[in-house]
Amino acid sequence: MLKYQQIANDIEKYIEDHALQQGTKLPVLETLIAQFQVSKSTITKALDLLERKGVIFQVRGSGIFVRRHKRKGYISLLSNQGFARDLEEFDLTSEIIELEVKKPTEEVALNLNMDLEEDVYYVKRVRFMNGKTLCLEESFYNKSLIPYLNHEIVKDSIFNYISDALGLKVGFSDIYLHVGTLTEEEAGFLQLDTGAPKLYVESIFHLTNGQPFDFSKVSYNYEQSQFFIQANGQLL
Amino acid sequence: MLKYQQIANDIEKYIEDHALQQGTKLPVLETLIAQFQVSKSTITKALDLLERKGVIFQVRGSGIFVRRHKRKGYISLLSNQGFARDLEEFDLTSEIIELEVKKPTEEVALNLNMDLEEDVYYVKRVRFMNGKTLCLEESFYNKSLIPYLNHEIVKDSIFNYISDALGLKVGFSDIYLHVGTLTEEEAGFLQLDTGAPKLYVESIFHLTNGQPFDFSKVSYNYEQSQFFIQANGQLL
Repeated sequence: MLKYQQIANDIEKYIEDHALQQGTKLPVLETLIAQFQVSKSTITKALDLLERKGVIFQVRGSGIFVRRHKRKGYISLLSNQGFARDLEEFDLTSEIIELEVKKPTEEVALNLNMDLEEDVYYVKRVRFMNGKTLCLEESFYNKSLIPYLNHEIVKDSIFNYISDALGLKVGFSDIYLHVGTLTEEEAGFLQLDTGAPKLYVESIFHLTNGQPFDFSKVSYNYEQSQFFIQANGQLL
Repeated sequence: MLKYQQIANDIEKYIEDHALQQGTKLPVLETLIAQFQVSKSTITKALDLLERKGVIFQVRGSGIFVRRHKRKGYISLLSNQGFARDLEEFDLTSEIIELEVKKPTEEVALNLNMDLEEDVYYVKRVRFMNGKTLCLEESFYNKSLIPYLNHEIVKDSIFNYISDALGLKVGFSDIYLHVGTLTEEEAGFLQLDTGAPKLYVESIFHLTNGQPFDFSKVSYNYEQSQFFIQANGQLL
């Protein structure tokens, strides 16, 4: 973790620990520079990161303010990968339905930008939050990038393994959302009725060099599907 | 529009007009500087904006690449406000159900950070995409910030009016997503069956100074609810 990321984490933790309310003014730049004993550019980078994450907002000529206004029990739609970090407040477990190496379908090959003769790791698991079903997940990993997965890894956070053990850096993702109804099979895994509403999310995750490495299809239990997104002005 | 925003728009338009595929390498920084005849910092700001918007990705020491990989017919969840820009490919219309000044409920007052004695503009409308219902929207605008709305404005893009006519700048938004089923009233407006699945989105929009000005509740027709999000690495 780089220095500015560490400082950003420290500031975010301070806001959380002190339960600072939205609109609370943070110390001015000069104070932060003195406090963390780093250069102005490092503090600026830390603040820009916090602004992109939706933790603070900066008003030119006026100051730096707390933005975080999260509702309890909501899952961040943009940072729920591996769930681990964002869902620390929840008790999260997985049940593995399938884990095997196979050939990709055309759809999978297209989304992972690979050939039909190459191999993918196919992972199917049900994830539970506080003992209730959260989602049914099917993921396809390009085996030439993720050469090895086992039950122990898959039961825990695959993304932590990819970054910590393989040293790969996750760059960006394309996320597609649909609303629909559960098939009989999905309903069985999620312990809901066939035809119940679902949030269906397809994601393509890329490494920082742009290579897609994971294509996943997730059907969420609608009773547990409470998501939040913090959007920044530049995107609106 | 600032110079770097104009350049970002030009580059994005070039990518779209030439239908450049994901992974296509763009000219190096020096070439862009020479081509647009601006400083390095202006080009860098333009590229950072495009990266945040998910149009490109930059690989250190390797270059700038096209990222845009949008599926046809999908609505951007983070830039669909006012719909106008993102939905140019669609034919979008509105039918106003209600437009009136009233007192906020406790829920609305809380989300807009205002007193119960103050006034809000209440707007209820059905939005149509290509002649089919897209969503039922209820919005509450803080009247002390948005002093005037009429049918003409509400039938068109309220957000364009707010920025163009009132000169206000939209800063950031908090978005909450749920999946549920349609009530009889909602189903009637959306021309669907009662109990059909819906995507329900609550948003709080803030000005750049942090003041919330719009609290909206939108129920989407699930048959039209295809959204995409382009997420950046820092958020994952």
